[in-house]
Amino acid sequence: MPDRITLYTAKICPYAQRTEIALHEAKADFVRHEIDLQNKPEWYAPKVNPASKVPAIAYGGPETPSDDPSPQSTKLAESLILVEFIADLFPSAGLLPSDPVQRARARFFTDAVGTKLTPAWHAYLQGKGSVDALYDAIAFLQALLPPGDGFAVGAYSVADIAITPFLARARVALLHDVGAYPEGEGKKVLETLTGGEGKFARFGKYFNDLLARESFKATFDEAYIAERYKARFGNLRNPQ
Amino acid sequence: MPDRITLYTAKICPYAQRTEIALHEAKADFVRHEIDLQNKPEWYAPKVNPASKVPAIAYGGPETPSDDPSPQSTKLAESLILVEFIADLFPSAGLLPSDPVQRARARFFTDAVGTKLTPAWHAYLQGKGSVDALYDAIAFLQALLPPGDGFAVGAYSVADIAITPFLARARVALLHDVGAYPEGEGKKVLETLTGGEGKFARFGKYFNDLLARESFKATFDEAYIAERYKARFGNLRNPQ
Ligand SMILES: N[C@@H](CCC(=O)N[C@@H](CS)C(=O)NCC(=O)O)C(=O)O
Ligand SMILES: N[C@@H](CCC(=O)N[C@@H](CS)C(=O)NCC(=O)O)C(=O)O
Repeated sequence: MPDRITLYTAKICPYAQRTEIALHEAKADFVRHEIDLQNKPEWYAPKVNPASKVPAIAYGGPETPSDDPSPQSTKLAESLILVEFIADLFPSAGLLPSDPVQRARARFFTDAVGTKLTPAWHAYLQGKGSVDALYDAIAFLQALLPPGDGFAVGAYSVADIAITPFLARARVALLHDVGAYPEGEGKKVLETLTGGEGKFARFGKYFNDLLARESFKATFDEAYIAERYKARFGNLRNPQ
Repeated sequence: MPDRITLYTAKICPYAQRTEIALHEAKADFVRHEIDLQNKPEWYAPKVNPASKVPAIAYGGPETPSDDPSPQSTKLAESLILVEFIADLFPSAGLLPSDPVQRARARFFTDAVGTKLTPAWHAYLQGKGSVDALYDAIAFLQALLPPGDGFAVGAYSVADIAITPFLARARVALLHDVGAYPEGEGKKVLETLTGGEGKFARFGKYFNDLLARESFKATFDEAYIAERYKARFGNLRNPQ
């Protein structure tokens, strides 16, 4: 039986959402503490995460209010490490395949999310990278998917948790045409990636399956993300 | 009982040495295939690793010569994923702690090797980063070590495998004063990092413990690395 878990998180943050999805999949009991990234509490870095980022977990130790974490709890950070930690704590959630080859495949997919997809997406969003570079990253991931259907390595796993929050935020940005890419391109790119036809037919199915997952829906506030993205990236195209 | 393992590797490469150390720790039977990175065989990318890098593993499938890998074996890449794969295949080697918190700590240390130590070291070697930035990275890692003695999380683990090849190559470069940092600085930095006194006393002990490990010694050809480093980085200070 796992110890007490306090999650320090922020709705806006894709890394943090990974840990929320994992905890939801694991049906874990935990205390959720939202950190305002614009106005971080001064206890956060010294008492929880010296890197001053979300997500972080305080694990174990005596019961204290989440804004006064005990020095006796273990503090852990880095979203992918936290997701594997949750997978380890709750093996019955099946977030890590038991076969070593499948585990390696899940980690390889996860690695490509961080080394290929997120850099290409952020570059595209900010007008520093082409849509073709984004499509190359997606094509790389698509080629790793099992043919037909199924998640990254078949059953839902850490790999799917790693990618979901980024795709969900990309979808919101593209849907509202928010970003520095050419005006009007957002909806077309979204249709290419999620329409389920053409060169990204397989990826489109995967994209939709990820966003239909209960653990995703329960941890994503679309209206909030849309509003924040409009505020943050809405005038990238016409900077004042 | 694990399947047939063929490792594609190169003595020069720190990433590849990680996998050799892991296989040695696991006392695994495997076929070692050296790839000449200056003159890569044309079958390597299409048949083993599309990214055309070492290390890579061909796992399972029928017995074939290592330069003619079977399409039926599983091809896996990325050093850290391979090290965890080997840890998963050979649990008796104890390369991953069984406690989830300790596993997370091992992965956090490993992550810092890639995000802090190796960028700071490569920048310093190439005259693009200060020795203080290198010391900051080392201080970060040192603070994660258990007090007194022991490896990154106590018992020898994947975290120690992740760092060892980089420290070993840094040691060779510093010992021979090879790199773009100020002439004569190499030996002093090496003494600071490994002398076992002063602000890096704890790290120095760790450094020496890592290099005394049998699995390291069996997989490191110091004379070869020294020669290659002199050829590659020896005139960085006075480029022609
Ligand atoms: N590599 C980290 C990245 C986490 C991260 O960058 N979080 C951002 C928010 S999305 C953060 O907390 N930044 C600090 C800040 O905004 O002050 C992880 O995977 O957990
Ligand atoms: N992220 C990879 C990096 C591997 C890597 O960069 N290997 C280098 C040699 S150290 C390589 O094979 N480069 C391709 C080349 O030299 O052509 C890993 O961890 O395995």
